[in-house]
Amino acid sequence: MSHIRGRFQKPAEKIVADYTQSISFDKRLYRHDIQGSTAHARMLAKQGIIPAADAELIIKGLEEIRGEIEQGRFEFKPELEDIHMAIEARLIEKTGEAGRKLHTARSRNDQVALDIRLYTKDEIVNTLERLTALQGSILTVAEANKAVVMPGYTHMQIAQPVLFPHHMLAYFEMLSRDEDRFRACYNMTDVMPLGSGALAGLPYPIDREFLAQELGFKAITKNSIDAVSDRDFMLEYEAAAAICMMHLSRLAEELVIWTSAEFDFIDLDEGYTTGSSIMPQKKNPDVAELGRGKTGRVYGNLMGLLTTMKGLPLAYDRDLQEDKENFFDTVDTLQSSLEVFAGMMGTMKLKSQNMRRAVERGYILATDLADYLVRKGESFRNAHEAVGKLVSYAAGAGKSLKQLDIKEYQQFSARFSQDVYEISVESSLAARDVPGGTSPSRVNAALKEARQRLSK
Amino acid sequence: MSHIRGRFQKPAEKIVADYTQSISFDKRLYRHDIQGSTAHARMLAKQGIIPAADAELIIKGLEEIRGEIEQGRFEFKPELEDIHMAIEARLIEKTGEAGRKLHTARSRNDQVALDIRLYTKDEIVNTLERLTALQGSILTVAEANKAVVMPGYTHMQIAQPVLFPHHMLAYFEMLSRDEDRFRACYNMTDVMPLGSGALAGLPYPIDREFLAQELGFKAITKNSIDAVSDRDFMLEYEAAAAICMMHLSRLAEELVIWTSAEFDFIDLDEGYTTGSSIMPQKKNPDVAELGRGKTGRVYGNLMGLLTTMKGLPLAYDRDLQEDKENFFDTVDTLQSSLEVFAGMMGTMKLKSQNMRRAVERGYILATDLADYLVRKGESFRNAHEAVGKLVSYAAGAGKSLKQLDIKEYQQFSARFSQDVYEISVESSLAARDVPGGTSPSRVNAALKEARQRLSK
Amino acid sequence: MSHIRGRFQKPAEKIVADYTQSISFDKRLYRHDIQGSTAHARMLAKQGIIPAADAELIIKGLEEIRGEIEQGRFEFKPELEDIHMAIEARLIEKTGEAGRKLHTARSRNDQVALDIRLYTKDEIVNTLERLTALQGSILTVAEANKAVVMPGYTHMQIAQPVLFPHHMLAYFEMLSRDEDRFRACYNMTDVMPLGSGALAGLPYPIDREFLAQELGFKAITKNSIDAVSDRDFMLEYEAAAAICMMHLSRLAEELVIWTSAEFDFIDLDEGYTTGSSIMPQKKNPDVAELGRGKTGRVYGNLMGLLTTMKGLPLAYDRDLQEDKENFFDTVDTLQSSLEVFAGMMGTMKLKSQNMRRAVERGYILATDLADYLVRKGESFRNAHEAVGKLVSYAAGAGKSLKQLDIKEYQQFSARFSQDVYEISVESSLAARDVPGGTSPSRVNAALKEARQRLSK
Amino acid sequence: MSHIRGRFQKPAEKIVADYTQSISFDKRLYRHDIQGSTAHARMLAKQGIIPAADAELIIKGLEEIRGEIEQGRFEFKPELEDIHMAIEARLIEKTGEAGRKLHTARSRNDQVALDIRLYTKDEIVNTLERLTALQGSILTVAEANKAVVMPGYTHMQIAQPVLFPHHMLAYFEMLSRDEDRFRACYNMTDVMPLGSGALAGLPYPIDREFLAQELGFKAITKNSIDAVSDRDFMLEYEAAAAICMMHLSRLAEELVIWTSAEFDFIDLDEGYTTGSSIMPQKKNPDVAELGRGKTGRVYGNLMGLLTTMKGLPLAYDRDLQEDKENFFDTVDTLQSSLEVFAGMMGTMKLKSQNMRRAVERGYILATDLADYLVRKGESFRNAHEAVGKLVSYAAGAGKSLKQLDIKEYQQFSARFSQDVYEISVESSLAARDVPGGTSPSRVNAALKEARQRLSK
Repeated sequence: MSHIRGRFQKPAEKIVADYTQSISFDKRLYRHDIQGSTAHARMLAKQGIIPAADAELIIKGLEEIRGEIEQGRFEFKPELEDIHMAIEARLIEKTGEAGRKLHTARSRNDQVALDIRLYTKDEIVNTLERLTALQGSILTVAEANKAVVMPGYTHMQIAQPVLFPHHMLAYFEMLSRDEDRFRACYNMTDVMPLGSGALAGLPYPIDREFLAQELGFKAITKNSIDAVSDRDFMLEYEAAAAICMMHLSRLAEELVIWTSAEFDFIDLDEGYTTGSSIMPQKKNPDVAELGRGKTGRVYGNLMGLLTTMKGLPLAYDRDLQEDKENFFDTVDTLQSSLEVFAGMMGTMKLKSQNMRRAVERGYILATDLADYLVRKGESFRNAHEAVGKLVSYAAGAGKSLKQLDIKEYQQFSARFSQDVYEISVESSLAARDVPGGTSPSRVNAALKEARQRLSK
Repeated sequence: MSHIRGRFQKPAEKIVADYTQSISFDKRLYRHDIQGSTAHARMLAKQGIIPAADAELIIKGLEEIRGEIEQGRFEFKPELEDIHMAIEARLIEKTGEAGRKLHTARSRNDQVALDIRLYTKDEIVNTLERLTALQGSILTVAEANKAVVMPGYTHMQIAQPVLFPHHMLAYFEMLSRDEDRFRACYNMTDVMPLGSGALAGLPYPIDREFLAQELGFKAITKNSIDAVSDRDFMLEYEAAAAICMMHLSRLAEELVIWTSAEFDFIDLDEGYTTGSSIMPQKKNPDVAELGRGKTGRVYGNLMGLLTTMKGLPLAYDRDLQEDKENFFDTVDTLQSSLEVFAGMMGTMKLKSQNMRRAVERGYILATDLADYLVRKGESFRNAHEAVGKLVSYAAGAGKSLKQLDIKEYQQFSARFSQDVYEISVESSLAARDVPGGTSPSRVNAALKEARQRLSK
Repeated sequence: MSHIRGRFQKPAEKIVADYTQSISFDKRLYRHDIQGSTAHARMLAKQGIIPAADAELIIKGLEEIRGEIEQGRFEFKPELEDIHMAIEARLIEKTGEAGRKLHTARSRNDQVALDIRLYTKDEIVNTLERLTALQGSILTVAEANKAVVMPGYTHMQIAQPVLFPHHMLAYFEMLSRDEDRFRACYNMTDVMPLGSGALAGLPYPIDREFLAQELGFKAITKNSIDAVSDRDFMLEYEAAAAICMMHLSRLAEELVIWTSAEFDFIDLDEGYTTGSSIMPQKKNPDVAELGRGKTGRVYGNLMGLLTTMKGLPLAYDRDLQEDKENFFDTVDTLQSSLEVFAGMMGTMKLKSQNMRRAVERGYILATDLADYLVRKGESFRNAHEAVGKLVSYAAGAGKSLKQLDIKEYQQFSARFSQDVYEISVESSLAARDVPGGTSPSRVNAALKEARQRLSK
Repeated sequence: MSHIRGRFQKPAEKIVADYTQSISFDKRLYRHDIQGSTAHARMLAKQGIIPAADAELIIKGLEEIRGEIEQGRFEFKPELEDIHMAIEARLIEKTGEAGRKLHTARSRNDQVALDIRLYTKDEIVNTLERLTALQGSILTVAEANKAVVMPGYTHMQIAQPVLFPHHMLAYFEMLSRDEDRFRACYNMTDVMPLGSGALAGLPYPIDREFLAQELGFKAITKNSIDAVSDRDFMLEYEAAAAICMMHLSRLAEELVIWTSAEFDFIDLDEGYTTGSSIMPQKKNPDVAELGRGKTGRVYGNLMGLLTTMKGLPLAYDRDLQEDKENFFDTVDTLQSSLEVFAGMMGTMKLKSQNMRRAVERGYILATDLADYLVRKGESFRNAHEAVGKLVSYAAGAGKSLKQLDIKEYQQFSARFSQDVYEISVESSLAARDVPGGTSPSRVNAALKEARQRLSK
């Protein structure tokens, strides 16, 4: 574009301009670009690099441009290539010579690096809020159903009884780790790159610490070449987002399974389900399915950005422009997913009787029988084998454990006695009274502890 | 949305509607949707499933809607969820009861499957055209520089002299394979799914073969469950696109390296380069860099769609809606990349003297020396070792091969005699007179053969 | 290693030798390497490039080496770097000067390209056999359960009744497409690269067509630079493998869900399930789960190889050595998965009564009610809405459709009359008498057609 | 296998045993498994769950088994499925009833979770050591070449002069961030899962805090369901490894380019390069190329594990077994790459005169000219345009900036005067005297600061 084609005798081809422009998506950075330019102008004036009067004109002009953009009065001309050029060109229209001084002691390379860091910091804050909101929804439904028992599954096979809130707290923990990752990413992002120039630093008496303070950064970057070529913080966000979407996909999978007629464990609110264009009876868990499906998108973005960065020589290569759409899509997808999942979990209703019925089915207490024999003095391996045979016998006879008489029990171990009938879902739960276990008292304490963490 | 929420008492939440809508991106399918609905209406009338008069009203209405969309007069209401519902709703506004009959003997599941196949077929044709255009550009620059010699590289080290057109033909071959893949993908896509209903087929006397003919498909799908859940053809397109972008990324890498001051092998046209916001002297190969960078995007989309499809139970799950944006982005990225690369290659200028200078540098003819010894009766391994030592000696002495006297040669093998000085870049090229080799006659023949293939 | 370090004065560092060696994994190619070298020696003799007697010694020596390897008597020395060097070094030990002539008119670059193509062709044949075997297993269980009815699902919600064999045939179709892809990949692979040399062709009167014939290739590569740098055929195999694993992951997901106590649709053979280290009652569908999990591995390999190839300049770069482990892992994973799935499907037992019970549940016939109204003259949209409301009413009243009396029906549409009670699962199936539909006669015909295709 | 197939009447099929076994790769965990079992036995005795004498027998037996494995006397029988079962089976052989008690109050699910966390913690420590070693190598070569000037590049075009140590410090910074990420990952991993049982906790009075202390963990997991299904820490390692390999791939790319004859900036030690099987003169940067290529592998593993985890219902699914080979491969690849890169950088020699020559080429000081005009009172945009035209003029006239006379300068801006000739590479470097900039004093300070960080 004209500002930067000084040595060129002809313009870029139309298809090239379309191919290389970024304004259609980087206009999203307008606010951060103006924020950065404002601080930059202030610093230039403070250091005597441009006159204070020019800085004032610039800052006022930028403020007006922000208004124009927010009121929809700003024309994003594709020929201006990117948001940075578009704003600068408008500023020059407005302020003439003053505006032509804004880009002193700055390059698009460090300007872009700044804008995207400012943006990322904002979006990490937004992400953390949504994570907390989803944790809140999960915790609320867990607290509201403290005593509900459900089958715990491994391999999708009924394994041992667990409390529903215990199951929910597993997701709470996953989301807590997600928060830790995004917080670490915030620290990685919170380093100010402006003042790195195109790649080598700048030949002006700039004050980078002042810029960092103005813009709310805790530190400045240490190497100018690294500063303009580094996108680690974006990759870190994308990796954290991929893991978080993986968590959501697991929750989604369970919700989809639980809403099947065969499980029928929960009822999703109508506001979070959709119908069919042809089958009038359908009530589909589309939100959960889409969340599960969108996991692919976030994984793909991570893989895309990693691929783009692979093998790039220092310092800046235009390949890096490919960082943005990819990143914006991950930010949008993750945040909207967290938001709808929070709403969905908040309105989900349990069918606790169906869950209970499922707990009664099968040989869910077999492990408890083995542990019973251990307490009676058997070694665990022997106990495990004996109960395995007993279960096999019972299944063959079409009987539940309760339906076996004591003689049948004793065929498999002489250690069985009448108290074996005291083993129940409730005794099984209560017995798992260890930190992290599913006994009612432990789960109650865990709910409280989670609520406390959340309220911080 | 109202059409399909018959059993529901409340609407979807706003955030849910936003999350689940697809109209913002699937409106791109409007033309194929109308094409499919038109054929469907015609078939319904032909089979007596709806009155011929209704079909006429429907077809006329659809044609008007196409006009409204193409003239920008159509309102894409987000609450209508997707392009299919939006068009049907407008049709009902226009035609009343007739429009309410269009969805007879059809489900959104087979309708979407049809639309996306029609779209994919069109875009494969477009992709093939752009591949051919890029091949044409490459062939033209190869033909125009038939006699230009350049170093062939392995490990980025100068290996053996090659003709520039020979190097270009390597890319021609890659693109030929890309075409084969897209053609195979066309055949895979060219199967008509309409008539599969939601998943089980339809209880109406429909004529699927007629639909296939009307819509230009060579066959109909064989299993209704598979038909609504199959996205193989999109994955196949995305895999072919990923391989094709990999090819472009290799070409791009070479162009970037060749435009460096150190190589300085080519000059890209100003229309295909850009300047710097700060360094006035810069002329950057941004188009090549962006093409290389966009490889990540296309890889990411492939990975995203594969992930989304992983582990989905039959038949249709809403996760599948995630196929579209991903796919559209790959289609757009690949096609625009092919287009700008064709333009870029078409305007590229060689600096053949610099290439020649690079050929003279170093010990590029060392392999020819070894082959010389083999022709004199040495075994290849001995010859290779002798020349290895000779090169090491020459490098140590700071001499080129030409600068060594015959005595020095003979220190490494008694088989060297005066004719060793006849070995030259030209003799090296001419000697590689095997099919696929870089001798001038073979390369000439290959250029002709390539031109013939292209003109088909 | 010594053979190729002629100009070097010191050996590679130990950690470098470990890092760069490939013999620990490319020894798998020994058979193809010997096959290629044998044909090469024969061609060299035929063309008078080496004496016939030397060729005989070489061929005999190679045959002996094959024996040594297959009998475990061959020492794979890591310092010999790769299988090609290891075999050549042993050959030289055995045959002296003759062996030192084998590498005449050849480079490791085209040798590796040849070996990996020979290997890939073999493995595609093996893959196709296993695909066919799995199709056979699926078809057999489908044929054995022709009349079994199950719920068809969309969104994991019960949608419409389908025949179990119809559901199975969906997988049969997916695997048929996989076969098409592997066959296309075979054609892409079936092109002979030997004679391309390091990158530029060879200065010897070689006969590449003879090599192609000896080695069973249908064509020779057209450009020497492309020939040594092309790995498209491996990427194509990996992309086809990724799609195929995606299909297996969908089947696996269904099997896992179907073996849950809540669905309880099938019984997997004990030989294809495993127990728990702690819960004696468990019978877990581990094979299906591992197959689903291994999908990630195959996707990852595809992504890995695509990444490795991105941005590589021509012709050969050492990065390409990374193609092999990745590829071997995909070949092994896909083939073993196909094999165990074939066994698992072959021993799977249906619990057809449970499937039937699930069909009876809910409002699975709602679509049929809507189609009933259409046949009575209602437009589809009106019919769909009316039935939606009727289902909502019935669900509220806790009644099945059968339990509604005709007055209740008529509250929602005056078109309902007594014959509405004739709608049944059987009538629903029979009505879907369209090509690809689930009616018994169509499914029977589809089974026969599938069996015919398979027997070809 | 027999221990856990109590209820089964037949063994797993041979192909199933092969498919599901993990001992061929998880035997790598033997040390951590024994460490975990030893602590578990000690805890069981301390809590009175098993007799102290049994615990002593167990611990002694485990110690012996460790010896057997380390001395190669242990038979890893594939039918024992995994390392956990293999060790337990051997323990029972040795200790009879005592050994049969070891698995009391434990499940393979929490046992595996423990082992892999112990392993990961160890490998993070190893990774950090290798990162530090590579940083040391980079810093040493930077310090040894403090005054070497090279062109700084953007878009592979010469941009501005930089000091070589400044360029190296960019990589130092990248590796510092990598360290931060691995340290964060260590904290995430350092949480003890044992005591979670299969999924629900355990019905024994275990002491999890004691276990954590014995095994050197800082905390215990908070939710048993989460504990057995969580692999976040492995994904976090893999994401950090992917970003780190991306950094190495950038360095590798530069080394490959720098060793080209055209750049000729560096000389890699023979111990870190390899020769050609056919071209005697070649000295290839294979280590750098392989490192660049292996980036694909590490990306692929990340994608593979993310895919495997997608959509898995809680708690444990056998898919999770797929975590290990993938992870081990990433650990091995990253660590060996760091190690060989440290060696390679440590022996790299600069060709500083060639670098200097490259700096002199072209219009590298154009930005300095623009900044000169700014200091003379011009606005930056005007200055940039004027210099752009001046460069265009000079290039057309075939002159360097130095060769232009003052009149020619003044055609483009009246502000040019005689002092323009004072602009030099040295003045350009010195002027960039800002934090993070490339002026000699800043770079010196940065080297010192880096050395201090490293010595911590």
